[in-house]
Amino acid sequence: MKNISIIGSGNIATHLAIALEKSIYQIYSRKIDNAKQLAEKVNAKFTNKIENIKESNIIILCVPDNAIKEIILKINANKIIHTSGNTNINIFNKKFDNYGVLYPVQTFNKNIKIDLFNVPICIEANNSIFLDEINYISQSISNHVVFMSSSKRRQLHIAATFASNFSNQMFSIADDILNKSEIEFNILMPLIKQTIKKINNNKPKKVLTGPAIRKDRETIKKHLESITNKEIKKFIKLLHKIL
Amino acid sequence: MKNISIIGSGNIATHLAIALEKSIYQIYSRKIDNAKQLAEKVNAKFTNKIENIKESNIIILCVPDNAIKEIILKINANKIIHTSGNTNINIFNKKFDNYGVLYPVQTFNKNIKIDLFNVPICIEANNSIFLDEINYISQSISNHVVFMSSSKRRQLHIAATFASNFSNQMFSIADDILNKSEIEFNILMPLIKQTIKKINNNKPKKVLTGPAIRKDRETIKKHLESITNKEIKKFIKLLHKIL
Repeated sequence: MKNISIIGSGNIATHLAIALEKSIYQIYSRKIDNAKQLAEKVNAKFTNKIENIKESNIIILCVPDNAIKEIILKINANKIIHTSGNTNINIFNKKFDNYGVLYPVQTFNKNIKIDLFNVPICIEANNSIFLDEINYISQSISNHVVFMSSSKRRQLHIAATFASNFSNQMFSIADDILNKSEIEFNILMPLIKQTIKKINNNKPKKVLTGPAIRKDRETIKKHLESITNKEIKKFIKLLHKIL
Repeated sequence: MKNISIIGSGNIATHLAIALEKSIYQIYSRKIDNAKQLAEKVNAKFTNKIENIKESNIIILCVPDNAIKEIILKINANKIIHTSGNTNINIFNKKFDNYGVLYPVQTFNKNIKIDLFNVPICIEANNSIFLDEINYISQSISNHVVFMSSSKRRQLHIAATFASNFSNQMFSIADDILNKSEIEFNILMPLIKQTIKKINNNKPKKVLTGPAIRKDRETIKKHLESITNKEIKKFIKLLHKIL
């Protein structure tokens, strides 16, 4: 049954719409071209007018966190869901009869394919019947659906920021350092893959290696000496403190 | 031909000895039990006496960086190699006729299996004939052998620290945050795997996502509010500056 309207056409919207293709009735985006492009992918209608959003549908908001409030003010709906890790369910503020959250714990890029089947989805709702409905939708795309409160979900989102954004930032810094010496980044890929393999079955702290763990001050000193960027120097010192 | 003596019985020593099993003549460790244990794995002799190390062998030092100097003072050898990313080849200080470096760009744990075949090995030597010999040894265990100067290797080692140790530290912090909310760490594994998959074909900086990249100050503020650890707060602020 095509009874879902997606608000947004960005990374999450794209992947959710594709995964839920059979249920997608309509794509809304402020930019009509974006709405059209995604709608065509999933054989759905599209619009750039909020008043055209079908109120009797389940509305899934796939917009940046700071745009949710504004859209809620403008929209009428019987059933509405947001997909943000960091936004409390109470943002819906009792304006709707049925509201909830469907947060996929994943990093999405429009152009990078992903199988949602193994992606954990955290769900929440203001009543148990709607929770069942969100659960049904989620189970249709993932085999790892968990109920989670807004406050836990926020902690999870912070943890996810460390696990994905900040670890990626470590890779970016590594890349910057290598660039200066004209070394290709791919020389680090086996190391990175092994680092991930190790935490598959072990607590990250248990498999930490490196100069900091060995309390090898000489190496740390040498590292600091050969780094010129002051922020990165500060950063390394702080990391050793946190350890 | 069994013509290699390994000094050390730790993580690198174990993996190198296993990979080079056919060439390993002898394992030295200060602790005789450790030497024996590894030697038995690779069908080699063992000793805990430096004077028993066979001088005509190729000696491979697999010891912590800060132990290299001391061992060099005590040891006599015709051909000697260290395996450190961060130690200049000049540490051998012309005491030996043939000296060099064989640095595998990988994180090793004794108890976690690893196929060295895809592990990059950076080699260096004080003369071209010995470089050929180190190259021959390295090619027998890896298909990714590169010549690299000591100064470049140090930059690579710093980059490797970011890519492995510091990214692992991000996972540890994530784990700490989840523990407090009684959420299992494995909920983050699909996210972490996807993060790695993205940098397989793209510059890390290009695939960065998250609140910092979106300049979503509201979310960052909320994150900072719900973190109590002061060092971690400082750390997040610094990361946003580096970005």
